[in-house]
Amino acid sequence: MNSSLPRPAVRLRAAGVAVALLLAATAARAAPATGDAPHKPLTTAEVLAASAPSDWRALDAQNTLYLELSSGRVVIELAPLFAPNHAANIAALARARYFDGLAIVRSQDNYVVQWADPAEDKKRPVGSGRRALAAEFERPLRGLAMTKLADQDTYAPEVGFVDGLPVAADPQLGRAWLVHCYGMVGAGRDNDVDSGGGTELYAVIGQAPRHLDRNVTLVGRVVSGMQLLSVLPRGTGALGFYEHAEQRVPIKSVSMAADVPLAQRTELEVLRTDTPTFQAYVEARRSRHEEWFKVPAGHVDVCNVPIPVRPRSGAVAAR
Amino acid sequence: MNSSLPRPAVRLRAAGVAVALLLAATAARAAPATGDAPHKPLTTAEVLAASAPSDWRALDAQNTLYLELSSGRVVIELAPLFAPNHAANIAALARARYFDGLAIVRSQDNYVVQWADPAEDKKRPVGSGRRALAAEFERPLRGLAMTKLADQDTYAPEVGFVDGLPVAADPQLGRAWLVHCYGMVGAGRDNDVDSGGGTELYAVIGQAPRHLDRNVTLVGRVVSGMQLLSVLPRGTGALGFYEHAEQRVPIKSVSMAADVPLAQRTELEVLRTDTPTFQAYVEARRSRHEEWFKVPAGHVDVCNVPIPVRPRSGAVAAR
Repeated sequence: MNSSLPRPAVRLRAAGVAVALLLAATAARAAPATGDAPHKPLTTAEVLAASAPSDWRALDAQNTLYLELSSGRVVIELAPLFAPNHAANIAALARARYFDGLAIVRSQDNYVVQWADPAEDKKRPVGSGRRALAAEFERPLRGLAMTKLADQDTYAPEVGFVDGLPVAADPQLGRAWLVHCYGMVGAGRDNDVDSGGGTELYAVIGQAPRHLDRNVTLVGRVVSGMQLLSVLPRGTGALGFYEHAEQRVPIKSVSMAADVPLAQRTELEVLRTDTPTFQAYVEARRSRHEEWFKVPAGHVDVCNVPIPVRPRSGAVAAR
Repeated sequence: MNSSLPRPAVRLRAAGVAVALLLAATAARAAPATGDAPHKPLTTAEVLAASAPSDWRALDAQNTLYLELSSGRVVIELAPLFAPNHAANIAALARARYFDGLAIVRSQDNYVVQWADPAEDKKRPVGSGRRALAAEFERPLRGLAMTKLADQDTYAPEVGFVDGLPVAADPQLGRAWLVHCYGMVGAGRDNDVDSGGGTELYAVIGQAPRHLDRNVTLVGRVVSGMQLLSVLPRGTGALGFYEHAEQRVPIKSVSMAADVPLAQRTELEVLRTDTPTFQAYVEARRSRHEEWFKVPAGHVDVCNVPIPVRPRSGAVAAR
């Protein structure tokens, strides 16, 4: 019984992107659509295979950032619904070429990677952008169409999703805020809450550091290329900072997707989170019905629901 | 206000090992002990700085595994209290030199790395070990001294710690099981629940995949060297398997610490989890009082409590 590889810990689970890209290639011969077997619980792969084109939305190039490393492109979707001033400022900084030639200066295991201006004087021009902004830690709950999770969250009264982003809310306070899940991007700050703004950004590369929620402005989410950040050598200095300049990872450029020629864009679609298909996907994550699973959890954490992403065309992706 | 580096997203947080190693070097000039300021909430660093030698326990060499890679040593503490047969079998396999020359065959982003025999025939001798064992997914709650978390867990009625391990429990069923937090090590299996045993092992490198709890036997925890696993290039095959043999990461050897000459051992101490000091540490993680934090979470996830580790001597470690 040990003779077959692959023999993974979880044979049938794959990260969102991998599933989606795979499905794009195999949808035609995938599992039956929901209607064919209404009483059989679906797997996540079956839910996605049965999805309609309208279950997906294309990334908006005016709201998408490309972080270019020598190893490839990290695609970040900004979150203007939660951090409008930071999103606009980061776009302005990108258009001022503020980030080009900066570096990833920190990689702390099970926590964050962070990129910034490594120069002591921090005099780099910011164009029409600003070096600091008032914090955008939370916003009114009113006006948000939140797809709520049924499960109890350890940290917040309610959790769910808005436009593909993990969100927490307190209905009594009428407030909502983004959640520090894997792949979320935030704006580093000093002790002054209004000292951030987007000139330094970090991405979560480990267990969700939920204690950061409402303490720092989250500005968006990595939708593609996380593995380019998560594998970076950990810094050996305090807090994972690289101790020597040559250890830093150069940033070739950061651009708004809209400013990149069409042929050079990464055209992606993200599974919408306000649809019955997404509800079915969450249910399939909550209770796994693949043969490998013996005890479905019956619950799911807001940070354990990777949002599927696929090439916009639905065509076979070279992987 | 942008002029000072470091300007981390979280200035004062560091992973368990980093904190502990730092403290070992700085305890003498660290913050006052609890008794000096009984009403001031302590930070995690202050709790650890005030800890007594009896708050720590040395790793038991008879229960510790060294996974040797060309990049360094990964130290794994086995969990015989939860998986006695797997722990004994893994020790037997190590003593049969079963793992020497095998490879890390899988690295899936935000999920697991996995090591195994990449050979098709899987005929490698196992000595007095066995290729498969009955599953050890859970055990009786009775007899466990569990330090419970006050916080509601999304997945289980109760969560807490036993001997430095994250644990979930269901008092009504009288059952307890290990939890898939970052750094936990498990025994891969096929669809047959009794097809694991330890010949293939995985370590969690991302958000806690709690849906695996009670579906696969957890055998221990990485207490040092996680960053050697977490940075491995992600495999581009399905489920993160490396597609080409040359991409695999060779395993030099896996040994029981007790079989390694004293001078070559990594002598570590782990913070005990059954003490008032640990309770204070958890409280300091639950509500962060470092100046940087503005809104203490007031809650903590069982997988967001890194267990501090330090050199056994308490001496300054070369980092």
